Amino acid sequence: MIGSLLVDNIGELVTNAPRDGVADPLGLRRDAALLVEDGEVAWIGPARYAPAADRRIDAGGAAVLPGFVDSHAHLVFAGDRAAEFAARMAGEPYTGGGIRTTVGATRAATDDELRANVRRLRDEAMRQGTTTIEIKSGYGLTIADEARSLRIAAEFTGDTTFLGAHVVPAEYADRPDDYVGLVCGPMLAAAAPHARWIDVFCERGAFDADHARAILACGQAAGLGVRVHANQLGPGPGVRLGVELGAASVDHCTHLSDADVDALAGSATVATLLPGAEFSTRSPYPDARRLLDAGVTVALATDCNPGSSYTSSMPFCLALAVREMGMTPAEAVWAATAGGAAALRRADVGVLRPGARADLTILDAPSHLHLAYRPGVPLIRQVLHNGVPQ
Amino acid sequence: MIGSLLVDNIGELVTNAPRDGVADPLGLRRDAALLVEDGEVAWIGPARYAPAADRRIDAGGAAVLPGFVDSHAHLVFAGDRAAEFAARMAGEPYTGGGIRTTVGATRAATDDELRANVRRLRDEAMRQGTTTIEIKSGYGLTIADEARSLRIAAEFTGDTTFLGAHVVPAEYADRPDDYVGLVCGPMLAAAAPHARWIDVFCERGAFDADHARAILACGQAAGLGVRVHANQLGPGPGVRLGVELGAASVDHCTHLSDADVDALAGSATVATLLPGAEFSTRSPYPDARRLLDAGVTVALATDCNPGSSYTSSMPFCLALAVREMGMTPAEAVWAATAGGAAALRRADVGVLRPGARADLTILDAPSHLHLAYRPGVPLIRQVLHNGVPQ
Repeated sequence: MIGSLLVDNIGELVTNAPRDGVADPLGLRRDAALLVEDGEVAWIGPARYAPAADRRIDAGGAAVLPGFVDSHAHLVFAGDRAAEFAARMAGEPYTGGGIRTTVGATRAATDDELRANVRRLRDEAMRQGTTTIEIKSGYGLTIADEARSLRIAAEFTGDTTFLGAHVVPAEYADRPDDYVGLVCGPMLAAAAPHARWIDVFCERGAFDADHARAILACGQAAGLGVRVHANQLGPGPGVRLGVELGAASVDHCTHLSDADVDALAGSATVATLLPGAEFSTRSPYPDARRLLDAGVTVALATDCNPGSSYTSSMPFCLALAVREMGMTPAEAVWAATAGGAAALRRADVGVLRPGARADLTILDAPSHLHLAYRPGVPLIRQVLHNGVPQ
Repeated sequence: MIGSLLVDNIGELVTNAPRDGVADPLGLRRDAALLVEDGEVAWIGPARYAPAADRRIDAGGAAVLPGFVDSHAHLVFAGDRAAEFAARMAGEPYTGGGIRTTVGATRAATDDELRANVRRLRDEAMRQGTTTIEIKSGYGLTIADEARSLRIAAEFTGDTTFLGAHVVPAEYADRPDDYVGLVCGPMLAAAAPHARWIDVFCERGAFDADHARAILACGQAAGLGVRVHANQLGPGPGVRLGVELGAASVDHCTHLSDADVDALAGSATVATLLPGAEFSTRSPYPDARRLLDAGVTVALATDCNPGSSYTSSMPFCLALAVREMGMTPAEAVWAATAGGAAALRRADVGVLRPGARADLTILDAPSHLHLAYRPGVPLIRQVLHNGVPQ
């Protein structure tokens, strides 16, 4: 029994729960306190009315935010690709082909090696304020390796995603139809018990619209929710396919037509932007402003993976979104918390109100603005996950 | 008496001390060990030949680098300008005019408040691997406030810089010649005992070439070394003036003519690039590649200040330099360590060899490449400053 915990002397509290009739998506409160009981938020109110509690954390006038929700991360892998990164920075283009390098290393790794890598990155993300993280498979690409990737991922999160259709593995290079059959058949059967979501890398060089549709439909039939890697490297059918299938999120969205934006604006599908990938592949950034102005729900996530975006830092992605993608600091904070929760169709995280999970970060700063205003600086002073100080 | 300390099991050691005849500016060594005695590096060699020591730190195969040398930081100030930042991200241009806001807050602060702010930022920088930091005055702009800014800065670093010529303060707005006279006369007299360097913001809207030359010449006559804020917001005379006066460094260098580059290439003046400022003012980045290809010595620094670059993170600046300025990861690491030392004309830091200060960082990564490959991630596992674990 942990008992109740009061976080008080909060200078600025981001709740993402605006009061009725107030145009303030962050639901900001000043001089607030927050009571945690049984891992949930039990009460929020003015500090002067704070109830008694078994323990107390003095936020010292700092800003407190919901923990970040990183809705797109590839953590189950072995090895790194630092040399590929250095070569790319010297001018080689990013094609996604390096994924196969990681597939080889991942297949060769033991379960414990993979588990240790996930734990290392999950802990690193947590220290930077991420309290909910989605984890994909996609570096196994055999029945056994996809199933074990998801089994290991499920030790760390409920939001596991089967990405057998990350790339066609080398041994199927000349018969992609057969690989799609494998993914839809025995691989899905082995993966589904460990997965909440199914995802496809729908891109030239990976899976075309027909293959993507077939795979996603099979996943839906097996009870998995849909997400799509879409329109990262060029224009393509991924976004509209995702919307058509009722995807919770289409991710990347770097190259969008007006029809893509219109489809998103009329849907419940979130556009998840991953600026770490554009940073580390030296590619043009997606236009968040265009999406926001069209009324699309935008999330930010890290895309943490050893090839195109080896960052676990949501604050870094948030600062990039403000610098490069036309988001205001408030929009970026919302997208990295409530937006991520929407992309995972989670009502219990990304928000601070009674009944929500007590996942929150105390900043080394007086305002959410500082996450973009102080780029690169580790500003996460303390993290509570399920109400427990980490 | 601390005794000797051995850092061993170093997977990759960046020394910045290349062996004779080897084209390897970082002077990389594998499987190395490093002995610290009396705050200095006493020995470097293969781990298997490591001498006995009183204490030992196992680097666990990680990379070890010289501590970062941040040769450009404005840490003596009060208040913040988060609202100005948010407005700028919403489209307002950066003109440098906001400096006067910080001047007002700084003048109103107590010595203890200023000291606490410097300590907070110095400690924050140290946690991110910065073991040498230059600190400027420039938010006082009265005789007493400049002198106390430098007196406080000198409590934290030997590299203090008198920047009375940061901007013409409001009370001198219509008589800038009088302000230059004040800076060159009684303000310099009060500042010089606490300063190693003199600096001028030579820019349209701040100080023109004649004023800058007069101020820098007075500072030289008082025994101070020269540095210049030059060519940040547009083309100008700052870089060539700095070279002409034998400046240790000209800083920003965002807008350079061929003549500027030629002047630098034929000089001992370092070009210090400050990409945090371009990031946070949404301005075009300086072209480091052009400078490097011309043979100019390049340093990277944070420009940490509450207006245009409120980052204390050298790793962040280094990652930006690779993404945005055409530097290789190795060039960026060199510029953030040995380059900064050159910009401060310091032979004892920015390098790891016998006799150098034992200022070093142990990364949470196997290679220096990871500082750019893993942007935004706090990768500094441990810092030694003067041989003492921080």
